[in-house]
Amino acid sequence: MRVRIGGKVRNLRAVWYERGAVRIIDQRALPHRVRLLALRDHKAVADAIRTMAVRGAPSIGATAAYGLAQAKLQRQDLDRVAALLRKTRPTAYDLFYALDWMRNALGSQPPIEAADAYAEQIIEQCRAIGKVGAPLLKDGARILTHCNAGALATVDVGTSLAPIRVAHDAGRSLFVYVDETRPRLQGAKLTAWELLQEGIPHAVISDNAAGHFLKKDVDIVIVGADRITQSGDFANKIGTYEKAVVAHANKVPFYVAAPLSTFDFSLKDGSAIPIEERGSDEVLSIGRERLAPRGSPARNPAFDVTPRQYVTGFITDRGILRPTELRRLRPPSRRR
Amino acid sequence: MRVRIGGKVRNLRAVWYERGAVRIIDQRALPHRVRLLALRDHKAVADAIRTMAVRGAPSIGATAAYGLAQAKLQRQDLDRVAALLRKTRPTAYDLFYALDWMRNALGSQPPIEAADAYAEQIIEQCRAIGKVGAPLLKDGARILTHCNAGALATVDVGTSLAPIRVAHDAGRSLFVYVDETRPRLQGAKLTAWELLQEGIPHAVISDNAAGHFLKKDVDIVIVGADRITQSGDFANKIGTYEKAVVAHANKVPFYVAAPLSTFDFSLKDGSAIPIEERGSDEVLSIGRERLAPRGSPARNPAFDVTPRQYVTGFITDRGILRPTELRRLRPPSRRR
Repeated sequence: MRVRIGGKVRNLRAVWYERGAVRIIDQRALPHRVRLLALRDHKAVADAIRTMAVRGAPSIGATAAYGLAQAKLQRQDLDRVAALLRKTRPTAYDLFYALDWMRNALGSQPPIEAADAYAEQIIEQCRAIGKVGAPLLKDGARILTHCNAGALATVDVGTSLAPIRVAHDAGRSLFVYVDETRPRLQGAKLTAWELLQEGIPHAVISDNAAGHFLKKDVDIVIVGADRITQSGDFANKIGTYEKAVVAHANKVPFYVAAPLSTFDFSLKDGSAIPIEERGSDEVLSIGRERLAPRGSPARNPAFDVTPRQYVTGFITDRGILRPTELRRLRPPSRRR
Repeated sequence: MRVRIGGKVRNLRAVWYERGAVRIIDQRALPHRVRLLALRDHKAVADAIRTMAVRGAPSIGATAAYGLAQAKLQRQDLDRVAALLRKTRPTAYDLFYALDWMRNALGSQPPIEAADAYAEQIIEQCRAIGKVGAPLLKDGARILTHCNAGALATVDVGTSLAPIRVAHDAGRSLFVYVDETRPRLQGAKLTAWELLQEGIPHAVISDNAAGHFLKKDVDIVIVGADRITQSGDFANKIGTYEKAVVAHANKVPFYVAAPLSTFDFSLKDGSAIPIEERGSDEVLSIGRERLAPRGSPARNPAFDVTPRQYVTGFITDRGILRPTELRRLRPPSRRR
């Protein structure tokens, strides 16, 4: 992705490996500052995932892949490292997919080569998602997106932002309504920042305003996903479910863009997806600002599950699939 | 309402008149500080409404009523003062209702007596709303509310919070999910503060989380309103529409509590309600924290319109009415 740092434009990924360290853009410092972190061991990698220095299901997966590769080079016990990384966050499937993929690949490939191949595969799938999804965006299209499913979330390119980038590069005029995405504001902080870097017209809105705009100002909703089940029910950032229900009530098409690593074919439907509940401070405060009175508690589920009946289609590297067509993506070895 | 100031409990209203000044609790300073303002002329009153030092449709109406009474005592041109006050905020109907009511009352009553009568009538209606609505809340009821339709919004007692207060005082165990209500956070700041003063169990949630909890953790939604039309379509704080649609999808009853002053029988349906769009800074920043990158614009509609098909009932001082029964509330003089 294009990143302006001190007047210069650099081409960065959300995560990569360089001179013994897993490198990431610290997403907690954006949009006001581009801070690059060097994670020197698997504990630092686990911390970065847990504290959301890196977030977004495919980026979490790639970071774990690099973390496992680094651990192998550092001659760590890979079972213990994988177990530690598995415990960092519960909802995004990519984390588990990446660790399984890497354990397999490390048998035959040098560690960093394997992790690079994993990351490259995600990016290739995102590029394909961009090509597959771009025709959905006609000239003048007004898009609503939630959270950040951009390059930051997916190593590079993005999932929900990929069709938007491709259509914008093709010269189509677009406008993106960006849900700010409380409590952590990944829309206002990360998606707005990515769109600004690319010069794509947009407006940040409070999550509450999405319904108002869905009535007549939005042509299509595209979101990413953290875990997609067999049935087509899927988990994504808290609030996605509301947008899907309101889009449906207004007959606005609702698409989910995701790479293969987000599909969990072991789960029958959404009821089996574990939902992470994060600390109440994310709701009660923003930065130095305490919002609620001292003494008021908060609840903070980080994800919700959207039932498949609200999904118009899944935008994947293999084409746009209806929820009932997801079995086509299932790897042959697991189909039996 | 009960307000703890420096260890002492005082019984305050959101707005009253004292020694030549319109007095209000400055709602911008809550929940961390209870600051009382003295508005010494109609310009100060208009500013307080415009800048949301006082907010909530019925409280706005009462503040305007006191402002007009004060202007009369100060021998101002009432046409000009009323015109100024009318322009402060466009959506809440109570503002216009109160000014019309006062112009009529000032013909026969001393100014402050008239404004006190106006405020008293609101509070009486809120008390009635509490009694009418409380039977909807069984022991153990879990309630979702949006924005603040408490005592702060309605001079005293509240509309959506009135049944909650009555049921709590009757010893029923309740739990309130409080939408934080971005962008201005009236839920996190004001509703949580009121519930805390009363000792009513609650949790603040991000607006995005309401859908998740509506699936199986909420028994009833109660909100206030800023303007209710003939048809039952109504305007309320941005985000209300989303909650109504998602409640409907989950078969959770959705109630609107409001005094007579919020009903605008001159409007046929919701399409005619003017929606205020406020400054983008409310979305782009919180206090000293800038959220979005510099260069990203925002859209900030302050209200949305919920169509009547999502309303289970209106809780009024005359009972619980279905949207089709609203004509019963219509004053006889206008029915012809």
